[in-house]
Amino acid sequence: MNAPPTVPLLPEVKPRQLPPEALAALRERFGPHCVTALAVREQHGRDESAFTHVPPPAAVVYAQSTTDVADAVRVAAQWRVPVIPFGIGSSLEGHLLAVQGGISLDLSRMDRIVAVRPDDLTVTVQPGVTRQQLNDAVRHQGLFFPIDPGANATLGGMAATRASGTNAVRYGTMRDNVLALEVVTASGDIIRTGTRARKSSAGYDLTRLFVGSVGTLGVITELTLRLYPLPEAVSAAICSFPSIEAAVRTTIAIIQMGVPIARCELLDARTVRAVNAHSKLTLREAPLLLMEFHGSPSGVREQAELVQAIADEHGAQAFEWATTPEERSRLWTARHHAFFAALQTRPGCRAITTDACVPISQLATNVVAAVADAEAAGLPYFLVGHVGDGNFHMGYLIDPDNPAERDTAEQLNRALVQRALASGGTCTGEHGVGLHKREFLRAEAGDGALAVMRAIKAALDPLDILNPGKVLLPA
Amino acid sequence: MNAPPTVPLLPEVKPRQLPPEALAALRERFGPHCVTALAVREQHGRDESAFTHVPPPAAVVYAQSTTDVADAVRVAAQWRVPVIPFGIGSSLEGHLLAVQGGISLDLSRMDRIVAVRPDDLTVTVQPGVTRQQLNDAVRHQGLFFPIDPGANATLGGMAATRASGTNAVRYGTMRDNVLALEVVTASGDIIRTGTRARKSSAGYDLTRLFVGSVGTLGVITELTLRLYPLPEAVSAAICSFPSIEAAVRTTIAIIQMGVPIARCELLDARTVRAVNAHSKLTLREAPLLLMEFHGSPSGVREQAELVQAIADEHGAQAFEWATTPEERSRLWTARHHAFFAALQTRPGCRAITTDACVPISQLATNVVAAVADAEAAGLPYFLVGHVGDGNFHMGYLIDPDNPAERDTAEQLNRALVQRALASGGTCTGEHGVGLHKREFLRAEAGDGALAVMRAIKAALDPLDILNPGKVLLPA
Repeated sequence: MNAPPTVPLLPEVKPRQLPPEALAALRERFGPHCVTALAVREQHGRDESAFTHVPPPAAVVYAQSTTDVADAVRVAAQWRVPVIPFGIGSSLEGHLLAVQGGISLDLSRMDRIVAVRPDDLTVTVQPGVTRQQLNDAVRHQGLFFPIDPGANATLGGMAATRASGTNAVRYGTMRDNVLALEVVTASGDIIRTGTRARKSSAGYDLTRLFVGSVGTLGVITELTLRLYPLPEAVSAAICSFPSIEAAVRTTIAIIQMGVPIARCELLDARTVRAVNAHSKLTLREAPLLLMEFHGSPSGVREQAELVQAIADEHGAQAFEWATTPEERSRLWTARHHAFFAALQTRPGCRAITTDACVPISQLATNVVAAVADAEAAGLPYFLVGHVGDGNFHMGYLIDPDNPAERDTAEQLNRALVQRALASGGTCTGEHGVGLHKREFLRAEAGDGALAVMRAIKAALDPLDILNPGKVLLPA
Repeated sequence: MNAPPTVPLLPEVKPRQLPPEALAALRERFGPHCVTALAVREQHGRDESAFTHVPPPAAVVYAQSTTDVADAVRVAAQWRVPVIPFGIGSSLEGHLLAVQGGISLDLSRMDRIVAVRPDDLTVTVQPGVTRQQLNDAVRHQGLFFPIDPGANATLGGMAATRASGTNAVRYGTMRDNVLALEVVTASGDIIRTGTRARKSSAGYDLTRLFVGSVGTLGVITELTLRLYPLPEAVSAAICSFPSIEAAVRTTIAIIQMGVPIARCELLDARTVRAVNAHSKLTLREAPLLLMEFHGSPSGVREQAELVQAIADEHGAQAFEWATTPEERSRLWTARHHAFFAALQTRPGCRAITTDACVPISQLATNVVAAVADAEAAGLPYFLVGHVGDGNFHMGYLIDPDNPAERDTAEQLNRALVQRALASGGTCTGEHGVGLHKREFLRAEAGDGALAVMRAIKAALDPLDILNPGKVLLPA
């Protein structure tokens, strides 16, 4: 007999009761948009993290407007029950799990593109709009939005986790690309942060404070984002290397030389194998860099030649080009599906995913050590990385009901994070702290900075109803 | 007889007393580095704003270390007296004026470059390091730091005001280029925010919260900044236009086409005249754009050709090139001195400087209306703009002791800001709110967002000792 399932790092799973009066108030206000059917609650009580044994929320409310959000938060405040914003459920860190019970506030039906302003290179959207939906809507105007986590996530969720993806090395992250927000506060007030101007020194940077706060300080109900003109020329290249280290050292040199590369992604050989199987590709099963160059035709050519020369110095084995939009799209879709491709190599598994980001000079040491540790532990894993940013993901593929595997993965995770912090890096480049990295945040930020974060949380959410239990461990 | 000097918008200039025990404690701790000589206090009680009648701080403490800062803040906390961080005094908005008395904490002697890491393109500095000092220190490594407000400001001050300057259109502002901070909080604790990694999703973005908070939430005692490789090729151009509008419309087209221009600065004819006189140049006295292109030699050529074509369409009269580093340096130094050049056109004057920043499509309307208003009012003024960002400065040159002129300037200022806000812009792109723009911040952010800012201020500085009276009007 197996040991009973364990849920490490989650000692405080203690759902608060949803009082019958609170449920009645929600039903009265939201009618059929307040749902308590188990299947719906369960769908809103799980994500892509390895936490598989958390009870679902007590109710799901589908918001259709900012007023809906404000009213739902007011009910939560009145009865002091948690309210957890929900986009499409692609969190890797347990952001949306109802560890203290309460209401899941589903924003996916707030999916309207409010205004595209091609003359200003900005767009205003509701939080349930997904990144693909946005790009489909602006492409014909010659524009695009670059931030692309693997999943087709909602823009509200992406802002809430301060997401990035493959283009961040050139275009920045959600931190850099959100201009303004509408937010519902813990008291149910509706506020606006930022403006449509490109920069501002007007008071405290509330936009950046809400970006990355995963619904613990407020619920994002509208976002104004930067858009970019589609580059005149785009070229993508696949390049295989004799070792992971050679691929990473190539990346380091590209960044240090200031090449304005648009994408620079690492996959190790076993991840390439998984991607080939999942996406029916025939990539050479060796460590590879997947790169993209944006610019004028001659600019792209120049960048590509420079990068090719750097790669050659590091023993690159082959340089293949994907020049048509179709080929490129196929390649990047495959990259975006790498996480799911890896999961399929071990049926029934879950991934404990690391997300360290380190100063670029420290990247090779960190990646090589992480791989060596994983090999020594004998646990299946995958390795992908937004290496141009110094950000890489090891995914340890565990049987979620096997405590020994979970422990091994967590030990690997801890060692990897300790190395990243010792290198001047962060425990999470883009997935967020959620539940899983709260101990790491304490180690990274220190007690002093954590106390400041707690003071802000207490000031903005004094009843602790907004996605409680996430980000900050209890003092 | 003139009317008595007025200090509009400053009804609450009410210096709190510095208790003798507090002064004794400072003297005991800081010895000769605690100064009460009137000349020194007066030097620390004025800036480049138009507020000329605020009493100086009661004492000046020269900090040499983070521990000094922490100890000074602890004394201030113990006796509940204000403590105001001071860099070199180049604020345009009254950030450092001792409107409630207290201690000026001079950080200019904390001027050590702690660590340059060329392999990571980062540098760690103390807050008293100036932008020129930093660039002098990293140039021989082929690196530079792009943010350049007109004055040779300190990096601590630049972070505190979320400064930008001429390169922001390509390289972003202090918001984008500060990776990590060491901060002394209101209780005298020393905390660290951020890491040396390029991106992070680790908890609340405290770095961005302290950047732009002008010492009202904490005192910045160390900064880690991004550096950039010096571009392979640089080319600067001066282009005259038949009208301000033509120059601005050229800029709008450049930005909308996504040209990665590094600098794009507007000067109106009278500012050109002032700059010529001050810097002994012979620029054509017409509205002009001062531009710079960074990249590979062919990339720079390509950008320049594209921009030239756009400018021609808008009736550009001449395109002159500054190709040698010496010519370029002379040009940009002249641009950086434009503020002082303008002040010299009217001896004894002070400037009331506007700082609106608007979505790029709205820039021409806003600039043209501001100029028309100023012409109608008959007050001397200058106009410069980081127009690539949508940011422009009108400087109304007033006799500070003439209330009528001050009122006229403030009326022009208000009209300009109202137009900017109605266009979706901000009242301050880079100078900060300080004292002067607190009413505007209320109009821009709204009562809801202002309440959130006040809650944060109260949570992090419950005794209201950190640069009190700035940014936020009393509720």
